[in-house]
Amino acid sequence: MAKVGVILSGCGVYDGSEIHEAVITLLALSRAGVEAVCMAPNIDQMHVVNHLTGEVDESDHRNVLVESARIARGEVKDISTLSANDFDALIIPGGFGAAKNLCDFAVNGPDCTVNSDVERLVNEMVAAKKPFAALCIAPAVIAKILGTNSPAPQLTIGNDAGTIQAIEQMGAQHINCPVSEIVIDESLNFVSTPAYMLAGSIGEAAEGIEKTVQALLNRI
Amino acid sequence: MAKVGVILSGCGVYDGSEIHEAVITLLALSRAGVEAVCMAPNIDQMHVVNHLTGEVDESDHRNVLVESARIARGEVKDISTLSANDFDALIIPGGFGAAKNLCDFAVNGPDCTVNSDVERLVNEMVAAKKPFAALCIAPAVIAKILGTNSPAPQLTIGNDAGTIQAIEQMGAQHINCPVSEIVIDESLNFVSTPAYMLAGSIGEAAEGIEKTVQALLNRI
Repeated sequence: MAKVGVILSGCGVYDGSEIHEAVITLLALSRAGVEAVCMAPNIDQMHVVNHLTGEVDESDHRNVLVESARIARGEVKDISTLSANDFDALIIPGGFGAAKNLCDFAVNGPDCTVNSDVERLVNEMVAAKKPFAALCIAPAVIAKILGTNSPAPQLTIGNDAGTIQAIEQMGAQHINCPVSEIVIDESLNFVSTPAYMLAGSIGEAAEGIEKTVQALLNRI
Repeated sequence: MAKVGVILSGCGVYDGSEIHEAVITLLALSRAGVEAVCMAPNIDQMHVVNHLTGEVDESDHRNVLVESARIARGEVKDISTLSANDFDALIIPGGFGAAKNLCDFAVNGPDCTVNSDVERLVNEMVAAKKPFAALCIAPAVIAKILGTNSPAPQLTIGNDAGTIQAIEQMGAQHINCPVSEIVIDESLNFVSTPAYMLAGSIGEAAEGIEKTVQALLNRI
């Protein structure tokens, strides 16, 4: 049975993994008969957002690994204990957690820093020529890690002009792509889709995510 | 466009809504072209469980409505503001939150008490002869509210002997049902499926949940 690593970044669109994107990914993997290996960094979240009001709750503190365990029903590993040898492909769902906890793109834009284990794992996947994918805002992480590669990594991240500009400043080439479709960087073995960067409904998000998972599995 | 109420009970299988069940429900509703109206009680959770260790975190306190907003991407209403007039059908995903926050079945078994707004809403649905459904452990809520009805409500809740006994003590009739199937109480207009009471994977859970949503929508 093939194994696919899933990097989570908390539990909730505004301060962690986008829950719908993560669950749709896990469902698509399960239906393809593939084992998901959920993982997350064992670090504090950048902050906690009250998802009812949209406001930061300064009094609260949560751990990315512990909150990610909610999506994974307890079955989540510390990313520092894993390497590219542990799976055949890798996928990073979106949500602000990807831009706040896996890196600090949400705060520092193109000058962001990526979590060292996330950076290591992505570089290991590239070195092993194993396929990987990123949804929604998560391609920003890939742009930062691999933006200085030649040729430039090709990816999609929705249609927000500022975000596209930041991605290109990090060295990536942005490809416009509708929510129902995917972008494949053939040389990098990398798949991306806009998901909730563009989706108006969970059904719309699912269409591109399911195609992403299928393309990822086809490349194993 | 038909509207379906979705009662959430927090965010995470051990102290809130089972995330996979809730998201699969929302996805099935979206793909059927139906509007989901997410709601939750504005009350404290019974407790907070660290989903990595499985232990109760006595130092933490969370609100059911605020945490449910994570699954609903902020679009969740206080259940006390809604009535059966606001939707055409109702569904309650599982997770321990259904048995800890919507009622206290997890603590008090057949002697449990149901949240007054949940009880009111279910009774309103029955009075209006509108269809409703419950997944996983959530049929326990229905058993408590409607168990003294005649004829006894028919439902399924997995295969745990103690849980089945408690359901029957509340007056419901338990029907054995595989994870991929559903039980329909025709006279009550009520659908249930075992979901993660039996599922060994998210793919297995999805099969019964998707059939539940389809049966629910067929009955509108």
